[in-house]
Amino acid sequence: MKVLHTADWHIGKKLHGYDLLPDQAYILDQILTIAKSETVDAIMIAGDLYDRSVPSEDSVRLLNQTIAKWNLTEGIPLLVISGNHDSATRLATGAPWFNQANFHLQTRLQDAFTPIEMGNTQFYLLPYFEPVDARIYFEDPDLRTIQKTMPKVIEKMQASFDPNKKHFLISHFFVAGSSKTDSETKIEVGGLDGINGKLLTEFDYVALGHLHGKDALKLDNARYSGSPLKYSLSEKDQQKGVWIVDTQTNEFSFRELTPLHEIKELQASFSELLDPDFYNAVNREDYLSILLEDRAVIPNLMNQLRQVYPRIIQVERANGFETAVSTRLKAENIKEKSPIALTEDFFTEVAQTDLTTQQKKWIEMGLQTSLQQGGAS
Amino acid sequence: MKVLHTADWHIGKKLHGYDLLPDQAYILDQILTIAKSETVDAIMIAGDLYDRSVPSEDSVRLLNQTIAKWNLTEGIPLLVISGNHDSATRLATGAPWFNQANFHLQTRLQDAFTPIEMGNTQFYLLPYFEPVDARIYFEDPDLRTIQKTMPKVIEKMQASFDPNKKHFLISHFFVAGSSKTDSETKIEVGGLDGINGKLLTEFDYVALGHLHGKDALKLDNARYSGSPLKYSLSEKDQQKGVWIVDTQTNEFSFRELTPLHEIKELQASFSELLDPDFYNAVNREDYLSILLEDRAVIPNLMNQLRQVYPRIIQVERANGFETAVSTRLKAENIKEKSPIALTEDFFTEVAQTDLTTQQKKWIEMGLQTSLQQGGAS
Repeated sequence: MKVLHTADWHIGKKLHGYDLLPDQAYILDQILTIAKSETVDAIMIAGDLYDRSVPSEDSVRLLNQTIAKWNLTEGIPLLVISGNHDSATRLATGAPWFNQANFHLQTRLQDAFTPIEMGNTQFYLLPYFEPVDARIYFEDPDLRTIQKTMPKVIEKMQASFDPNKKHFLISHFFVAGSSKTDSETKIEVGGLDGINGKLLTEFDYVALGHLHGKDALKLDNARYSGSPLKYSLSEKDQQKGVWIVDTQTNEFSFRELTPLHEIKELQASFSELLDPDFYNAVNREDYLSILLEDRAVIPNLMNQLRQVYPRIIQVERANGFETAVSTRLKAENIKEKSPIALTEDFFTEVAQTDLTTQQKKWIEMGLQTSLQQGGAS
Repeated sequence: MKVLHTADWHIGKKLHGYDLLPDQAYILDQILTIAKSETVDAIMIAGDLYDRSVPSEDSVRLLNQTIAKWNLTEGIPLLVISGNHDSATRLATGAPWFNQANFHLQTRLQDAFTPIEMGNTQFYLLPYFEPVDARIYFEDPDLRTIQKTMPKVIEKMQASFDPNKKHFLISHFFVAGSSKTDSETKIEVGGLDGINGKLLTEFDYVALGHLHGKDALKLDNARYSGSPLKYSLSEKDQQKGVWIVDTQTNEFSFRELTPLHEIKELQASFSELLDPDFYNAVNREDYLSILLEDRAVIPNLMNQLRQVYPRIIQVERANGFETAVSTRLKAENIKEKSPIALTEDFFTEVAQTDLTTQQKKWIEMGLQTSLQQGGAS
């Protein structure tokens, strides 16, 4: 049996103010295409379907349409948990009816101990929960941390293990742990809140959600799928995708996703950026972080750039500014300076360029008029 | 076939700041009890399930639990539309899966023209919609009002009428109309936004939602169920309940609901209200509008009353105040009066009682001290 592992959709998330819903609709379609071409038997979604506990109507519409298409139109079984970004109560709407269609959505700790059996595998769906939920469920006031709680949770799951079946866990937590083959896997994720990876060894595969990079953790039997899209500039070098897991062999392989718009860094001068030879050679539709090589002040910079590049998420100076701001006013100077000199200093500091002769004349005229009127009132 | 007609649950509504969720859970259970004792074949809910487009988590939980119990545990078919208080998009979450369980939830105009067939009846589920929805659906820019739109909607429904079946409409609108038997039915409801009741004559029964009184309109074939609870003081004399409709005979009869807490008016003096002989004879747990017979100012009135009556929604004076406020200060008087006289006037106006001799002394002392200090500073 083949299952697809994805997580952290964060539907409704914005990127530096840009609405990502079209990007999200596009990438979710791509996940479906992979699921169909791989003829997977089920899709696991490991939490954070929404970005907020109260998602917008447009977000609700996208998730509802996506899930209905995958499960009802395409007939793909779904195994889904809520993450820390989801409202468990809101996300659970409709869940009691979904089971009939092999759509298993679990949002409460107490439901995690009844595995969903599919083919040769028992799937344990453990939604994100807080220690307080465990204290109530286990009637144990000492369960004050996730570290204390997880051994009890895993132990209780193992009590229902069918030894003739494979055992998959779908979960949404930080997992601390490292393999010894790759420096990247030495990252201890989540610190105090991290769950010891050793707790997970009894599972054949652990489908994790929460961290956005597929390489955040590498255990022999556990993976983060990562988010299907880059959700911050710091994720720009991550390859996004989904895992395809074989429940017979526990082997898993990564299928890459190609976003509607990439997040890219562009380094160039202002004149290059506005030169058709330059911008026709790059994908102007990407989300761009621009490193501007110029050092001069450029009036109306963002508006000019946005006419060519509609999705700029930030502009930084590669080489700093031309005018090292040496004119910063000091208290002792201010009292000694004439109004005209002060105005000139202020202009230079804000505009990063000197006044023209004409501009100086206007200021002189303006100040004289103002002083005369002040005296006459 | 027998069907139950209810509407306007407004889950999450507050009454003068009081959380009504316990009252709503109680009354919804009572509706289920009626449905079971009447062995109805379906329940129609004619919109406004929630009070707000973004309901609270507790509201979501109550609706989800209620609907799951009625439909899945009790196996009762449900015919439900969204009202103007519901977010059609949010309420529709899960709807594509519900049909399998004979739970039909329709929130979009375009779905209203495919009747749900059950037993001998075609049910048309017409959710609340705006004229813009009709302009898009009918591709007719002239549909600027509901009055213009409804004939087209009804006509299109009638095109799919099976002449061998009964035809029920579930809808959420103002209907203007009157029967000639009862003065109460002369009320024209909704004015400009009202739909002519004649449009509805082809239906065997029209289950309406929107107005909170069951007697808001009486046509031979149409009824508002009203809300299951009194949601404002103005509804205090309404008998709340549900309709039971026979689809064979089109006859309908009302089943009364008894709330967890009534809305009542109490008229009494303050001393009576705090007298056990009095308050043990009334239901102190009701939502109370109190008409106080005293005319004197009573310090700390609300706190004292609330210790006996926990759900006071308002207190009014049956006989006005003792001190007809004749001392309201006029601009011309103020300049002529001494600070002591002004303070006395102010106290009398606010406290509705005169200063005692001791209080007058304190004011004199205070003012003298204050004037002396003012001179010395």
